[in-house]
Amino acid sequence: MAKVLTFGEMMLRLHPSGYQRIIQANQFDANYGGAEANVAVSLSLLGDESEYLTKLPNNPLGTAALSELQKYGVNTKNILCGGPRLGIYYFEKGASIRSTNVVYDRAGSSFAMATKSDFSWPKILKSTNYFYFSGITPAISTEIEESVFSACQYCQKNGIKVICDLNYRGKMWTTHHAQCVMSKLMNYVDVCIANDEDFEASLGIKAFDGNMKFGIDQKDNFKKGMYEITKRYPNCHIVASILRNIESVETSQWTGLLLKDGHYYQSPIYDMHVMEGVASGDAFGAGLVHGILHHFEPKNMINYAIAASVLKLTINGDFNLISDPEIRSIQDHGTGASMSR
Amino acid sequence: MAKVLTFGEMMLRLHPSGYQRIIQANQFDANYGGAEANVAVSLSLLGDESEYLTKLPNNPLGTAALSELQKYGVNTKNILCGGPRLGIYYFEKGASIRSTNVVYDRAGSSFAMATKSDFSWPKILKSTNYFYFSGITPAISTEIEESVFSACQYCQKNGIKVICDLNYRGKMWTTHHAQCVMSKLMNYVDVCIANDEDFEASLGIKAFDGNMKFGIDQKDNFKKGMYEITKRYPNCHIVASILRNIESVETSQWTGLLLKDGHYYQSPIYDMHVMEGVASGDAFGAGLVHGILHHFEPKNMINYAIAASVLKLTINGDFNLISDPEIRSIQDHGTGASMSR
Amino acid sequence: MAKVLTFGEMMLRLHPSGYQRIIQANQFDANYGGAEANVAVSLSLLGDESEYLTKLPNNPLGTAALSELQKYGVNTKNILCGGPRLGIYYFEKGASIRSTNVVYDRAGSSFAMATKSDFSWPKILKSTNYFYFSGITPAISTEIEESVFSACQYCQKNGIKVICDLNYRGKMWTTHHAQCVMSKLMNYVDVCIANDEDFEASLGIKAFDGNMKFGIDQKDNFKKGMYEITKRYPNCHIVASILRNIESVETSQWTGLLLKDGHYYQSPIYDMHVMEGVASGDAFGAGLVHGILHHFEPKNMINYAIAASVLKLTINGDFNLISDPEIRSIQDHGTGASMSR
Amino acid sequence: MAKVLTFGEMMLRLHPSGYQRIIQANQFDANYGGAEANVAVSLSLLGDESEYLTKLPNNPLGTAALSELQKYGVNTKNILCGGPRLGIYYFEKGASIRSTNVVYDRAGSSFAMATKSDFSWPKILKSTNYFYFSGITPAISTEIEESVFSACQYCQKNGIKVICDLNYRGKMWTTHHAQCVMSKLMNYVDVCIANDEDFEASLGIKAFDGNMKFGIDQKDNFKKGMYEITKRYPNCHIVASILRNIESVETSQWTGLLLKDGHYYQSPIYDMHVMEGVASGDAFGAGLVHGILHHFEPKNMINYAIAASVLKLTINGDFNLISDPEIRSIQDHGTGASMSR
Amino acid sequence: MAKVLTFGEMMLRLHPSGYQRIIQANQFDANYGGAEANVAVSLSLLGDESEYLTKLPNNPLGTAALSELQKYGVNTKNILCGGPRLGIYYFEKGASIRSTNVVYDRAGSSFAMATKSDFSWPKILKSTNYFYFSGITPAISTEIEESVFSACQYCQKNGIKVICDLNYRGKMWTTHHAQCVMSKLMNYVDVCIANDEDFEASLGIKAFDGNMKFGIDQKDNFKKGMYEITKRYPNCHIVASILRNIESVETSQWTGLLLKDGHYYQSPIYDMHVMEGVASGDAFGAGLVHGILHHFEPKNMINYAIAASVLKLTINGDFNLISDPEIRSIQDHGTGASMSR
Amino acid sequence: MAKVLTFGEMMLRLHPSGYQRIIQANQFDANYGGAEANVAVSLSLLGDESEYLTKLPNNPLGTAALSELQKYGVNTKNILCGGPRLGIYYFEKGASIRSTNVVYDRAGSSFAMATKSDFSWPKILKSTNYFYFSGITPAISTEIEESVFSACQYCQKNGIKVICDLNYRGKMWTTHHAQCVMSKLMNYVDVCIANDEDFEASLGIKAFDGNMKFGIDQKDNFKKGMYEITKRYPNCHIVASILRNIESVETSQWTGLLLKDGHYYQSPIYDMHVMEGVASGDAFGAGLVHGILHHFEPKNMINYAIAASVLKLTINGDFNLISDPEIRSIQDHGTGASMSR
Repeated sequence: MAKVLTFGEMMLRLHPSGYQRIIQANQFDANYGGAEANVAVSLSLLGDESEYLTKLPNNPLGTAALSELQKYGVNTKNILCGGPRLGIYYFEKGASIRSTNVVYDRAGSSFAMATKSDFSWPKILKSTNYFYFSGITPAISTEIEESVFSACQYCQKNGIKVICDLNYRGKMWTTHHAQCVMSKLMNYVDVCIANDEDFEASLGIKAFDGNMKFGIDQKDNFKKGMYEITKRYPNCHIVASILRNIESVETSQWTGLLLKDGHYYQSPIYDMHVMEGVASGDAFGAGLVHGILHHFEPKNMINYAIAASVLKLTINGDFNLISDPEIRSIQDHGTGASMSR
Repeated sequence: MAKVLTFGEMMLRLHPSGYQRIIQANQFDANYGGAEANVAVSLSLLGDESEYLTKLPNNPLGTAALSELQKYGVNTKNILCGGPRLGIYYFEKGASIRSTNVVYDRAGSSFAMATKSDFSWPKILKSTNYFYFSGITPAISTEIEESVFSACQYCQKNGIKVICDLNYRGKMWTTHHAQCVMSKLMNYVDVCIANDEDFEASLGIKAFDGNMKFGIDQKDNFKKGMYEITKRYPNCHIVASILRNIESVETSQWTGLLLKDGHYYQSPIYDMHVMEGVASGDAFGAGLVHGILHHFEPKNMINYAIAASVLKLTINGDFNLISDPEIRSIQDHGTGASMSR
Repeated sequence: MAKVLTFGEMMLRLHPSGYQRIIQANQFDANYGGAEANVAVSLSLLGDESEYLTKLPNNPLGTAALSELQKYGVNTKNILCGGPRLGIYYFEKGASIRSTNVVYDRAGSSFAMATKSDFSWPKILKSTNYFYFSGITPAISTEIEESVFSACQYCQKNGIKVICDLNYRGKMWTTHHAQCVMSKLMNYVDVCIANDEDFEASLGIKAFDGNMKFGIDQKDNFKKGMYEITKRYPNCHIVASILRNIESVETSQWTGLLLKDGHYYQSPIYDMHVMEGVASGDAFGAGLVHGILHHFEPKNMINYAIAASVLKLTINGDFNLISDPEIRSIQDHGTGASMSR
Repeated sequence: MAKVLTFGEMMLRLHPSGYQRIIQANQFDANYGGAEANVAVSLSLLGDESEYLTKLPNNPLGTAALSELQKYGVNTKNILCGGPRLGIYYFEKGASIRSTNVVYDRAGSSFAMATKSDFSWPKILKSTNYFYFSGITPAISTEIEESVFSACQYCQKNGIKVICDLNYRGKMWTTHHAQCVMSKLMNYVDVCIANDEDFEASLGIKAFDGNMKFGIDQKDNFKKGMYEITKRYPNCHIVASILRNIESVETSQWTGLLLKDGHYYQSPIYDMHVMEGVASGDAFGAGLVHGILHHFEPKNMINYAIAASVLKLTINGDFNLISDPEIRSIQDHGTGASMSR
Repeated sequence: MAKVLTFGEMMLRLHPSGYQRIIQANQFDANYGGAEANVAVSLSLLGDESEYLTKLPNNPLGTAALSELQKYGVNTKNILCGGPRLGIYYFEKGASIRSTNVVYDRAGSSFAMATKSDFSWPKILKSTNYFYFSGITPAISTEIEESVFSACQYCQKNGIKVICDLNYRGKMWTTHHAQCVMSKLMNYVDVCIANDEDFEASLGIKAFDGNMKFGIDQKDNFKKGMYEITKRYPNCHIVASILRNIESVETSQWTGLLLKDGHYYQSPIYDMHVMEGVASGDAFGAGLVHGILHHFEPKNMINYAIAASVLKLTINGDFNLISDPEIRSIQDHGTGASMSR
Repeated sequence: MAKVLTFGEMMLRLHPSGYQRIIQANQFDANYGGAEANVAVSLSLLGDESEYLTKLPNNPLGTAALSELQKYGVNTKNILCGGPRLGIYYFEKGASIRSTNVVYDRAGSSFAMATKSDFSWPKILKSTNYFYFSGITPAISTEIEESVFSACQYCQKNGIKVICDLNYRGKMWTTHHAQCVMSKLMNYVDVCIANDEDFEASLGIKAFDGNMKFGIDQKDNFKKGMYEITKRYPNCHIVASILRNIESVETSQWTGLLLKDGHYYQSPIYDMHVMEGVASGDAFGAGLVHGILHHFEPKNMINYAIAASVLKLTINGDFNLISDPEIRSIQDHGTGASMSR
């Protein structure tokens, strides 16, 4: 059974319940998550062997984050313990025309303060087959960026496949900085996920005009961008993207595109009533990786990934608490109409 | 004033709040309900005299269930007390394309363990005018099935009208078993409610292809099925059905069909934003019975029943906490647009 | 910097969480609000200098209401302390076709029991530039009605502009009574907000047929009503209205109309998913006043007011907890599609 | 089986959860209660036939209060429906040395606005054996005071025993007013409950110095006061009192005294950890009445009443949700040490 | 590192929040636990290698129970999946003199329906050094009783130490039945925990008069009982007991007794304010086993076990979420006085 | 009216509800507080003019903290806006023998990152009469330490009295560092509060052996320490201390000592049931300052301060939401026995 190791930062997520604003809240719902942790949990729930690597503080918050990973069966044996604090993000869920607001409080975290020498890749990656990171990880610090680079080099030398979700975060670095780093890392990447602004912000490839209301309408441009990635980075033979038309916080259409071996595949379009709009990209990534691990046909691979992704829109918290049969059922019936009793 | 007695099982319903999954829940919202209890409560709230018959354990859970019935004015004087436990159903509310999931934990309940001899029909039904049960009741056990049969026989002999909601439950019995039992019981039934899969699963009558997305579109087939019921079971002179097009957990269209004395009547179609999709069939049943008790014109009868039913989609818990003026207001204005201040 | 003083009653709002009915509730969410208090809070949050005038009881409920105003920066220095009680309104939020239900329990409140002599207008209005009240205020009692009249007279003599939201409440007074009072007060009003039934109920001007499902469709009649107001009350040079098509509790379209110096201006139409349908008229009023204070162009004035108003539909509680940049962002992009991370 | 009818006002109780102050609360826990309603519910839970008489508004709050009574089996058939509002009391639970704070908002309630003619005693009391009221009832209004007087007269003429808990409330009337009214009513009372300040405030009998820290220490004075009651009002042959040493909100000692036919009986003293200090007097009253209904020996009567009373200190809400076996178990073992598993 | 395997049933625990009674609850707090699962979790949190064996249903409740074990690092690899349902226990927390009430709903659970052949001991116990069960396990069913017997036989043959907490449950079996089974099993037990009624109920040894208010006062009798155990069952060389004086639900004194190699050791006595009185025996058992695993001196062994036990009284839920340093700190300072900041 | 300005850091406080541990929490209760903010709020609630100075981030968390201050009437006009983040402290409330656990996450906050030049003392302190800080403030950073020093120098030159609560925090700095800084600042201090370990940790004066169980028993040593402070720092003419015997998280005795003009004064001793043990030192400080502002007699001054302090033990959150009449009532009656109704 192939093993996937994901590498990144895990945070405490605090959000006022319902559609309260932060100024109204005298309670915050607490969850733990982070792009790569989310992928590791998803894979474990899909029955795959997954490991997560990060650094967590030696305090009850770090322990709580670690326990959440264990709860869902993720291997945590290489997670480092120490450093000053667990990063936080405040999540103020929007409604209708009012956008969701994310406030980062992640500076100075244990992971951000970690050093290259903390990560001994030969030991860590010994029995790993796939190494997964998103663009958030190298954005965290120079030391972490260099750690990712070391890991990628080690992977290439040792036949470990590298999967990267570009995952650009404008609150973490500039597009210039992102492009410098990501274009270097892309030389090691076998599978690339690029959504929305990632093309341009992370790689300088123009594929999307930035209007989230009309993402699907720009499918042809997306295709060109995906093709451009494979052209620039020949090591990368799979590119996958989510395309969305987002009408409001609750209403959107979703579809997935896959470029593999020069062929394009598109999933069905899902009309969604969205409960929570975060971490669906990670759910997509996990679905894609699961398809790769199990050698799905390309059409099935993108269909499975997008079904995993849209199911995340119905789940509370960062983790996509969905099983393989549930994803398959959506692929087959595409609806919440039935209720088995 | 005519009295209705309903007969069935009452359960504790446990559901994680909001759209949480069971694995996330450290609290469950608790309600008490069950198809026939729901009907009894509805009728009481509509001003009718209703009694409920079941068996509840002699423990705080049984007492709590009993108290909920009393709270809403249902006559509970014949309810039996004893047996091992109160049945439970876990209700994991779906969202968008993710279906609602119901986990039954009702085996071995006080009602399921009750015996025929527990129910002394002549004493119980003395002052009753209508006897109501759903297909769930005979599915619970052989003893209960035989109790229903005895009750029906008593009713026929004593001029008590029998109302049956077929209410097929695939998790409780096979279609074969259901058809054996229900086709026998139907000979005593005066008023029959048949929804969706009930036609085929309970009676072997093909009327609906099983696709809940396109129920209303199959209206003509439903009509044939309704007619077939009256043909097969001549004692049954009223058949009513709910037809639905369910797009997602939150979005559906609803309409009602009534076959009475050879004439069909259809209610308006309601476009619904659904808060909770359970027990709306029971609300429909109660609305229909209320119409029968008060000798509504057929058109008004089905309109009233479907209005009661769709209002249930806006109510939390199994009981349809709706008053007669509220149902009439929906019949007249069909909207939630106004707010009286 | 111009100062606005608003005058009215503040209440405790109690509502069962989620879509529970009052009979189900063993907890009520508690907020404090009232039309004119809502306007004062909105203006303060938009950066304007606002003061609120009312009378609150000398008990923990009165103190809590006062503290909420202070929390959001409203000047409370002239608020009177004393009298029997804080008024209450119970807010049973509807869903889909089930209408929201408001139960008033405001009789005998400290404000309703206040007397004319409680309000010493020359002292209170000394440094005020705008005096704002809604039709709810004079509906409360004869003493309060006369207080409003005195205030208006003082304003006219002292160059203080008077802004009135007609805000008819059928549970508080008859249309006959409302028309007697409001038509007298309108002679002092410089800026008038008239929504829906206000035209006819408060002023006897026919402009809207009462069907909230088709408000926008009656735009031409609204325009005529607005013009009629300026004609009847020449002192009134600005009239603004919200027009709505309300399909259900959750779904509606909103637009704003402005008549200024004989010209009409209409805002864009917003398609809304509504979280909470109260106090959006107050949010509209505050947006309009903000535009007046800052000498917005008429087109921008109505656009700003309606954007403020529809944002309120996404906010929990009576106060519109929205900032100026958030309103401008909606004016510019009109959507909740983006999420900045 | 003897029937008890209790007569008084029922209110909505709102309290911030835990030990929050009102100014901190954005939620209130909601219960319904009132001295005489509490007694009726207790009696019903102890298996007695009890009826409650009051007037409730015709709105969801009135319906909710009514439903709570029905839930616990109280006969509500004579309860009047109408009038302006349901009274409220805010309950800010103290802690340690910080006293509990009760804010009444009961003026102008449906019951307070009821008139003498609302209560047709011959019809209401037809099958009643015991009439129970507390001193709160006549304190509500002159009309209610006169209604109590009429009821007492009717009872005396018709052999219905009258039970009165003096229950003085300093926030409702002066001692002078209370003494005028209660001394007149006491001529009709067969059984009197007098606690703490009631002796002096309601009847002008000096028995207690007002220091709740040292109630039990003044037992001899209490005895004299009890005797004085029987001397002044020869119709009254039973007097019962609770004596307390209250150290803090959580800690107190409780004992009961009974004077019957010239003999005194004292219950054991209970050392209590108090969860909620309201309505324990009503629990005592109900326990006493139950003892009278079932002809308990005097010693058992006071022991039972005080056990019922102290169990109330462990219960959330106004109603004493305790069964007869639970009271007997406390009488026998006097402890919470055991846990049956 | 030595490994401990514990064997028993895991249940869903439902309890109304605070000190609510079940009849008041519209929410239940949900936890998962069971005597032997609690021990396994404790050991894992203390840094030991622990495994838990049970059978859980293949539904979301079973998965949730499993996930909770994983969360705290317990090895779950041999847990069986299948069977009808997860057992439940309702936990109505008492207060002051009102006892805690436990309602079992565990009949027919997946574990109770398991068969002997489900448990292949040679495979399961391969790398186990200690086998732990409590008297609850053989009380569940004859099949489970025989499974325990097989396991004990296997252990004896293979040098695996057997630890048994007698843990008598009067709601599960009679003392006669318990004595038959337990006296047979005791021949295989190396370490025995006997508390309170266990001596007599499980083994027929008189050591405690049943009055939980005065357990510590009967220390000499306990000692005799402990000695009698070692005399009757020579294989058993360690007996440990908790002695308690329970004044009320919140107040009790706790001490531990250990008999080892003919010597008695007593821990200090702890004066406790109790938050939750369940599963402290399991915490004691885990503390004792931890001491055995790490070869603590006998005095330290009993001190550690009782410190672990009393810390459980401050923890919400069945699991004793306490670390080794926290136990040591209580041993050293015996107080909650300090707060490190 | 004299004005007090307090200077320090404000944090978000997150704590799991009830006695949950952090690892169990999926919700955190949120409050805002900090030693000097707590003092400012207390003074405002006591009717004094108070201002608070800090630096808060320009994000919703900073705005929420600011709003909480405004809610309670604190002047916030000089508060700086900017910097990276709001500090946090996690508060895991202990129970019985389990100590409360505080986890700081305050490094890198907006206040900690502020520079000397951010605080223009002549402008800020223009109309201030008292300057209050605690030892936490200079512990935050060198820049803040120097800011405090500048402020103290300015105060001395301009006749502004300086009040300092030594408030040693071992998690923020070493005793060596604290002594260096505080001994320098003490030369400017007019009024000093020294509790528990503060004597030695902040000033190197031995007065308390560190055992919180026996603080009051060491009264004579405390007196010597207080005298030593006035001797070493002649500018300091008032020293006040809280002495405690802490038996457990819930149970403690409290008394206050005051040294003024060479005379000692001791308050009564309070036996407390503690709901929440944080910020009572700040409540004491505010009570003392209120006494100074209003020229209380020394005996009354210390009695008032300790009454304010012990009332804080009954309040949820960092702010002491207590009024002047409530403090006076405790001084007069010293109990929670009464309940006014």
